[in-house]
Amino acid sequence: MNFTASTSYDGVLERDFTVGDVPGVLWTPVNATEHMPLVLLGHGGGRHKKAPAMTGRARLLVDAGFAAACIDAPGHGDRPRTAHDEREITLMQQAMATGEPVGPIVVRYNAHLAERAVPEWQATLDALQDVIDGPVGYFGLNMGTAIGVPLTAVEPRIAAAAFGLFWHDNLVETARKITVPVEFALQWDDEHIPRESGLALFDAFSSTQKSLHANTGAHKELPRFEADSAVRFFVRHLM
Amino acid sequence: MNFTASTSYDGVLERDFTVGDVPGVLWTPVNATEHMPLVLLGHGGGRHKKAPAMTGRARLLVDAGFAAACIDAPGHGDRPRTAHDEREITLMQQAMATGEPVGPIVVRYNAHLAERAVPEWQATLDALQDVIDGPVGYFGLNMGTAIGVPLTAVEPRIAAAAFGLFWHDNLVETARKITVPVEFALQWDDEHIPRESGLALFDAFSSTQKSLHANTGAHKELPRFEADSAVRFFVRHLM
Repeated sequence: MNFTASTSYDGVLERDFTVGDVPGVLWTPVNATEHMPLVLLGHGGGRHKKAPAMTGRARLLVDAGFAAACIDAPGHGDRPRTAHDEREITLMQQAMATGEPVGPIVVRYNAHLAERAVPEWQATLDALQDVIDGPVGYFGLNMGTAIGVPLTAVEPRIAAAAFGLFWHDNLVETARKITVPVEFALQWDDEHIPRESGLALFDAFSSTQKSLHANTGAHKELPRFEADSAVRFFVRHLM
Repeated sequence: MNFTASTSYDGVLERDFTVGDVPGVLWTPVNATEHMPLVLLGHGGGRHKKAPAMTGRARLLVDAGFAAACIDAPGHGDRPRTAHDEREITLMQQAMATGEPVGPIVVRYNAHLAERAVPEWQATLDALQDVIDGPVGYFGLNMGTAIGVPLTAVEPRIAAAAFGLFWHDNLVETARKITVPVEFALQWDDEHIPRESGLALFDAFSSTQKSLHANTGAHKELPRFEADSAVRFFVRHLM
């Protein structure tokens, strides 16, 4: 793990790093010890490791005594796009512009990204555990769920996961392999993801402890208090 | 409002009262002022105004700066049972003993109790507002929902309500009349209430702000943290 930059603000130490050619960021309390729980943050599609949702969740987690880390997904943030990435992104933009359903393209493209991202997350976690060695959780919505479900299914170090806002289609079989506690958010009036699809994904997890939080509102209207709820979920299961 | 007894413990002032022939209990901080939010607590079937779930929720609410009040439902606690009550209770006990579905009896009997309880709650709220005059919420699960949904539908003073753990059958039309914020709990593996029935009741509320919390587990296994969640819900909407 190669630390490339460091800054601190309001009690948060923010360190940029690379693992191989994957850039990431680690947030800890300024006076952190090695022994603390760590939550991996998966960003959404088209976003990056320091998007406001990531820095906001990192802030909440650090305030609650966690470390948090995020890496740029393949083709996102500071990482180059492949020709495949460019083609899929163009198709998504065309679908959104013409009002066609974007779901099938997102589901297919994010499954492809997950195949690339899962081993990157595992190598990142190997490296992070030289710095932080407490219990590990995963928190990611949208594309962060498309990547986080297959990651959590194969990664025994992840002991609790917060997911949400994704279709069930490609993820149901993988979700059935997950037995750790899960908190899952969906939007009751999501204009992209059918309600039944979100409920089917929640239902698929084999976890004996799982909680569904469904709120009124459109896809992008997830209430802010759900981030606080996810932090409390990690406090219950990792501390 | 006739106060009949008073005790205090750990900063909570607990006052028994009667309104007409309905006995109730009011919990406030010991040093309460007149201007504070009030949450009405509806107890479950076969329980009473000082059952552990009621005193526990009152404790959480008082700690968060609320007053809380509960009355015995008709035929419950210190109140006499009618011949009708006795017949329905016998039928419920027989169904439970033989393993027949108890739902149809509970739905029918609780609808009957709600007709008696709604005007009692309204008279109680009239009287309570001489003592406590802040915004009002309602919190009740099981039979507390069977009574609370018709109460909230006709009572404009109730500004937020936490419900859950009940069948949709008799309540859907009434729930459609409710527009205040709602938090709703259901058990994903409820052995009495079909999942689709709970989801249909949640869906029926016309509230633009509503949250569903579904947790794994059987009917009586609602996680304790949902009581804390309901308190935070009332903090968001009444404070």
